Amino acid sequence: MCPHTNGDSAPTDPSQMVPVDISNGTSHQASTQTNGHAATNGSAKQRTNPYAPRASDFLSNISNFSIIESTLREGEQFANAFFDTKTKIAIAKALDAFGVEYIELTSPAASEQSRKDCEAICKLGLKAKILTHIRCHMDDARIAVETGVDGVDVVIGTSSFLREFSHGKDMAYITKTAIEVIEYVKSKGIEVRFSSEDSFRSDLVDLLSIYQTVDKIGVNRVGIADTVGCANPRQVYDLVRTLRGVVKCDIEIHLHNDTGMAIANAYTALEAGATHIDTSVLGIGERVGITPLGGLVACLYAANPEYVKSKYNLPMLREIENLVAEAVEVNIPFMNPITGYCAFTHKAGIHAKAILNNPSTYEILKPEDFGLTRYVSIGHRLTGWNAVKSRVEQLGLKLTDDEIKDVTAKIKELADVRTQSMDDVDTLLRVYHSGIQSGELAIGQKEALDRLLRKHREGQDATTSRDNSISRPASPTQA
Amino acid sequence: MCPHTNGDSAPTDPSQMVPVDISNGTSHQASTQTNGHAATNGSAKQRTNPYAPRASDFLSNISNFSIIESTLREGEQFANAFFDTKTKIAIAKALDAFGVEYIELTSPAASEQSRKDCEAICKLGLKAKILTHIRCHMDDARIAVETGVDGVDVVIGTSSFLREFSHGKDMAYITKTAIEVIEYVKSKGIEVRFSSEDSFRSDLVDLLSIYQTVDKIGVNRVGIADTVGCANPRQVYDLVRTLRGVVKCDIEIHLHNDTGMAIANAYTALEAGATHIDTSVLGIGERVGITPLGGLVACLYAANPEYVKSKYNLPMLREIENLVAEAVEVNIPFMNPITGYCAFTHKAGIHAKAILNNPSTYEILKPEDFGLTRYVSIGHRLTGWNAVKSRVEQLGLKLTDDEIKDVTAKIKELADVRTQSMDDVDTLLRVYHSGIQSGELAIGQKEALDRLLRKHREGQDATTSRDNSISRPASPTQA
Repeated sequence: MCPHTNGDSAPTDPSQMVPVDISNGTSHQASTQTNGHAATNGSAKQRTNPYAPRASDFLSNISNFSIIESTLREGEQFANAFFDTKTKIAIAKALDAFGVEYIELTSPAASEQSRKDCEAICKLGLKAKILTHIRCHMDDARIAVETGVDGVDVVIGTSSFLREFSHGKDMAYITKTAIEVIEYVKSKGIEVRFSSEDSFRSDLVDLLSIYQTVDKIGVNRVGIADTVGCANPRQVYDLVRTLRGVVKCDIEIHLHNDTGMAIANAYTALEAGATHIDTSVLGIGERVGITPLGGLVACLYAANPEYVKSKYNLPMLREIENLVAEAVEVNIPFMNPITGYCAFTHKAGIHAKAILNNPSTYEILKPEDFGLTRYVSIGHRLTGWNAVKSRVEQLGLKLTDDEIKDVTAKIKELADVRTQSMDDVDTLLRVYHSGIQSGELAIGQKEALDRLLRKHREGQDATTSRDNSISRPASPTQA
Repeated sequence: MCPHTNGDSAPTDPSQMVPVDISNGTSHQASTQTNGHAATNGSAKQRTNPYAPRASDFLSNISNFSIIESTLREGEQFANAFFDTKTKIAIAKALDAFGVEYIELTSPAASEQSRKDCEAICKLGLKAKILTHIRCHMDDARIAVETGVDGVDVVIGTSSFLREFSHGKDMAYITKTAIEVIEYVKSKGIEVRFSSEDSFRSDLVDLLSIYQTVDKIGVNRVGIADTVGCANPRQVYDLVRTLRGVVKCDIEIHLHNDTGMAIANAYTALEAGATHIDTSVLGIGERVGITPLGGLVACLYAANPEYVKSKYNLPMLREIENLVAEAVEVNIPFMNPITGYCAFTHKAGIHAKAILNNPSTYEILKPEDFGLTRYVSIGHRLTGWNAVKSRVEQLGLKLTDDEIKDVTAKIKELADVRTQSMDDVDTLLRVYHSGIQSGELAIGQKEALDRLLRKHREGQDATTSRDNSISRPASPTQA
């Protein structure tokens, strides 16, 4: 039953599912006000979420941010990643067409081909600004500024862990080098960002001190990095908010996903006043990677769909994820936000009923905004009579509610043995309907229904074997 | 290069990776104090995280919670799920052995087989308490209490969306029915929980009012449910914290993952005073599911490893995920926390260097606590000479740092064309080493190195074709 095809959010066997018309009048009539800023549609029936952003959230950049897309830098650090020039260019063009504000590339100091690819992407003339990511070192900076990039992202480890076990430098040395590199990059007239590494295990005073110093000399952005994926949302909020009071420049954040909190941490960072979020497609990067582009889009869309739709070409998301998934040979995770297999499939009877009445009841994202379709699954033991009723109406059959409840009990009984395909369900509904019409069947007559189903199956088997004997020519080898 | 085998966190081709000895003295010597409560190891060099929980977090239950494992209820609502009795029992036993405090089952009112399976699991004599999940309705409650469960989880939709488009009842009716059902279940001497549905889109006063009412009549737990996956961490914190001030009973939370924030929302709920978290294995459930068991364990382990290790049999996690993944025919997502392919694989040179010095530099989770192994990948263009040096030492070769830097440049050059396997890297290192030893090679002599490599390859090809001619017998058809 499971497809394992990259990015195919529609189940393999659509015969088990009812596609739901998404153009009907009730669809998401209330969805724009559910959770965000855009609560403008003031129907009396619609209530605002008491926990939606309030006036006190004056720092929030939930509706005012840029994405720094790092599939071609952090993503190249994913164990499976090897991007040749052609693939890099295809990914860069797709991200640009999607609408990300920045594309970050591997350091040109990493290898000769990395340098050439960086130059090639700078020459594509994309709308997105091109950045490259370097160690805080003059050698790297000199190579970077020659590639034609719009900006340079500088990073150095500041935690006691990294200072002791990685580069072995003290804060005075880090500060001195940072100033030298930043002033050099600025002198070339391009953007420069300075980021610490492992910021959440760094000394707070050290951090604020170096950020304040680089802010004063005119760095464009400072970056916070949860390099090890140890941060939680309230820590992120506190650190970004504190930093927001210390520097005037933009604030970028880079969040690893080791404990599965990278999307929420990014969202919370924006609430606290961060301006730029690092992402990669499907989150690929070191270990389990960073904030995924799709997941970030999902939570920001839920907060303010109109703003997110105005910035990004959302129906391209699936295509970009497929492109990258193929390049690094992974499957789209089945539980991926938006594009995961079943992200818009509804199963339990209680859910199916409400979804058929109004998709906003159980959906915070509109599948049609992402070029996708919603499904209601009905051939299983958790099904409900309301979902079955919807199928009865789609088939143009006439049954009373009590009759539908009766036939639903039969679906559950059959599905207790094995999940029923949509064909199975349709057959059952048609046999039940014709039994009721002909008077051979009434509510609660289980044996009569079983007899009719048996009769139908036997008739079908006869037809099938007749069809087979006609359609199957004698084997040429036997001729 | 990608395995796509369920739960295999080791890369397919271990020949591309250096397994890292995890018993060495420096491993994680500092990890217990990085991010949590257990900051007892007071080496002068170790600094505490300035954003770790503070005294003001008096409500936090990060180190005092129970898991309500709902793979056999919410998980059954995943589109791919069909659990037969045998599979249900295997999953229940595995979860019990892992150590979850509660196992929640599909309502016995859903189907005849659901009822029988519920009774069968109650009779297994597990340590975990068995719950079943029912609509707020006396018919369902009567069936539930007869199954032998330790508790009943009652749910009803309270948002304006669900009240209008799902059950159509008002708050007065909901309250009256809730009291009736709760008092009935309590009269049978078993636990009872009352939960709203779609809590984050419900009226706050309605919510608090009904929770206060059911608390007064002695409900064991009240439940908050983000049924549509629209909540963000700060909303979760605010609602749970508010509720904590209103009720004396336990607080459970059930979080859908539509925007990828379900793990972080669960973590934040515990910080705000929630006591019980709903999970399912791999997060399976309606649409993209709920808080995954593994992800929740990852973030709570990062906060307090000793507490989590004392409660749960962590090395079983991978086995349980494989069991469920096979039952519902999905792959373990490549970016799954802990068990994802590459969760403990380090690639960039700067990471590899630090990891080899001290794994705490880039790891917040210890793979060995989960029965897993860490890898360092070195045959790619982002590699660094420190990682290569570690391999040189493992092979017992003697090279100076300058020689290692020289051969690392060659690895990068080759890896710019295609990723090098561990065998390729080892061969290069051995050829380089013997060249240096014999005097045929010195630092920077690129042509000499190429010549030696060519010679080595030709020698190998000759050996291979000789081996082949010996090992490959004449084809019998030609005999």
